[in-house]
Amino acid sequence: MDLTPAETKMENFNFTLLKKDSLTQARLGEIRTRRGLIETPIFMPVGTQGTVKGMLPETLLDLGAQIILGNTYHLYLRPGHELIRQLGGLHTFMNWPRPILTDSGGFQVFSLGKLCKISEEGVCFQSHLDGSRHNLTPEFSIAVQEALGSDIIMAFDECVPYPSTREYVRDATERSTRWARRSKSAWRQEEGSALFGIVQGGMYEDLRRRSSEDLLSIGFGGYAVGGLSLGEEIVLMYDIMEFSLPLLPEDRPRYIMGVGTPEDLVEGVARGADMFDCVMPTRNARNGVLFTNSGKISIKQSRYREDPNPLDPECTCYVCRHYSRAYLRHLFQANEILSSVLNTQHNLHYYLDLMKKIRAAIQEGTFTEFRRDFYRKRQQ
Amino acid sequence: MDLTPAETKMENFNFTLLKKDSLTQARLGEIRTRRGLIETPIFMPVGTQGTVKGMLPETLLDLGAQIILGNTYHLYLRPGHELIRQLGGLHTFMNWPRPILTDSGGFQVFSLGKLCKISEEGVCFQSHLDGSRHNLTPEFSIAVQEALGSDIIMAFDECVPYPSTREYVRDATERSTRWARRSKSAWRQEEGSALFGIVQGGMYEDLRRRSSEDLLSIGFGGYAVGGLSLGEEIVLMYDIMEFSLPLLPEDRPRYIMGVGTPEDLVEGVARGADMFDCVMPTRNARNGVLFTNSGKISIKQSRYREDPNPLDPECTCYVCRHYSRAYLRHLFQANEILSSVLNTQHNLHYYLDLMKKIRAAIQEGTFTEFRRDFYRKRQQ
Repeated sequence: MDLTPAETKMENFNFTLLKKDSLTQARLGEIRTRRGLIETPIFMPVGTQGTVKGMLPETLLDLGAQIILGNTYHLYLRPGHELIRQLGGLHTFMNWPRPILTDSGGFQVFSLGKLCKISEEGVCFQSHLDGSRHNLTPEFSIAVQEALGSDIIMAFDECVPYPSTREYVRDATERSTRWARRSKSAWRQEEGSALFGIVQGGMYEDLRRRSSEDLLSIGFGGYAVGGLSLGEEIVLMYDIMEFSLPLLPEDRPRYIMGVGTPEDLVEGVARGADMFDCVMPTRNARNGVLFTNSGKISIKQSRYREDPNPLDPECTCYVCRHYSRAYLRHLFQANEILSSVLNTQHNLHYYLDLMKKIRAAIQEGTFTEFRRDFYRKRQQ
Repeated sequence: MDLTPAETKMENFNFTLLKKDSLTQARLGEIRTRRGLIETPIFMPVGTQGTVKGMLPETLLDLGAQIILGNTYHLYLRPGHELIRQLGGLHTFMNWPRPILTDSGGFQVFSLGKLCKISEEGVCFQSHLDGSRHNLTPEFSIAVQEALGSDIIMAFDECVPYPSTREYVRDATERSTRWARRSKSAWRQEEGSALFGIVQGGMYEDLRRRSSEDLLSIGFGGYAVGGLSLGEEIVLMYDIMEFSLPLLPEDRPRYIMGVGTPEDLVEGVARGADMFDCVMPTRNARNGVLFTNSGKISIKQSRYREDPNPLDPECTCYVCRHYSRAYLRHLFQANEILSSVLNTQHNLHYYLDLMKKIRAAIQEGTFTEFRRDFYRKRQQ
């Protein structure tokens, strides 16, 4: 292994592989950061605008959240990274004491579609808030993330839409590699954060391989697999995970970005992923879509009108211990704030508890049985 | 005192006057209900639709809430009182173990304006949700409140708009007295709730006197002063409190309905009131208007953009201990759920803490000093 300076700063960021599953690629590990330990595989709740929507930080800690994600694009535009720096950084600003991973802002900017324009230098985009024009470069993305006080900083990359031509994906991936190098140069390692690179290459195995090799030669504290927001193309996503994850070094955390459903987390872990983030549990919660051990339910359905049972009889969360489906349906129908609060709390409990169970199963050498039972319950 | 059967059921509902202030009409007392003790003077947070907007019940308990108010009109229409009864009553439904007072539904129905029609029998109104037609009578209001499992039930009355002619007020007040008698007949005392009568009579002292005498002769567990939502007419409201409250028996709790600002609470207590409810702290919170020891502030103002200070440096609440004005402004600007949650928590703390301080001052015989200091801080 090429030991770049990043990896020598053991006190700030360090990954330990604790156990490998014998039948799958699943791994148990831990990441030590300057703001505490993260057990992997881990799910990171998304706190886009300096808050995980509807959740107090204390509730997140109670739920077992060990790290959350902040969105650079949103925080840069509002309230502004310099303001957050001035107020002591994002942790102080939002009262979250544990690690924060920030994305590079790239994904959101590229999601703006026609409002964004790419060049070798970076991206010019228009704010979704007021239409104002901004430039995002690798150097600026890193500077913003550092101003926020992020513990895990993501290199700036282009997230290529799916589907795209091979030629476009190749050019974009090569540019992302150049941006990754510039990100690393801009990164002020001495401040104590870690920097992750992001593998791109779309659905093309050789481009993914090339991207991985290039990123490895630059050297990062961890590696992410990007460009996996493929909509309904689940099989393709699993395929990309399957050929991309083994390309990454065993002694670094592997992060699958923006994924996914509970099934995706189980499958990602089985393919060797350590970290996940997704808005699904929180966004679905606000739309009344709730995760249970027997699958998803939509709480607004009239079948729950008089239902005195908890959301998920198997669930031990605060919501399932204290409220009926009928009450949760009422709150949703009445458009009450508490609907979003309770639903989010339940869904995050579901996701975080799922990861906890996955870690326990890997520890006990029963991950394959766990995975089988997980699907069996859903088919009932 | 005419001891009606209501007053003999001491185990279910009992008011004890603990102390009277020497300079004002302020009183310290306690109400014992089947669901626990209420210290008076008390403020009751409003939980219109089976939730105090944005608050977990546990948070309300932490804040020192001892009783909350539920709205009969809203709960009757959605999700329906029979459904709530079937699910174990409002306490179980919403996970609130302490006392609940329900209004009669009258105030909301009369607020519908042209969508409501009054007769001797009761009121015919159209739902604000779907335009469907419903009848509300004294008997039905009591039945709905009993189905909800309310601990303190309000008699059904007509809340006369201000201003109204003396003739209209007289007729309405007399009808309300007849409705109060029917409310008492319909009330199933054996179920363990208390029933309160409501003094009406608008701004007319003689009509208020007449209303009080009539209600006293019917006999209730407590007495409310209704019709005090007078908009900007604060002096008139204080006048009505001043001549209405002494008409009520000393050994029964006196409840000022739908009032008010922090100043109104202090003035109501000084005039002999024991109980208050108002949507002001919760509704204002959602609009970014926050109560502090030096007066109200609107958190959206740009002056708070970079302000690292707590909302109220004198406040000891969770929000003031953990968040800056800049963060609260950001949450408000970004339309985040947590904005309503934190703002509501702060404002309810302010109201409940104010009442706690008022009780301590009456206990210590320093209410007049407290009242003077309260205004002095606001003028700074």
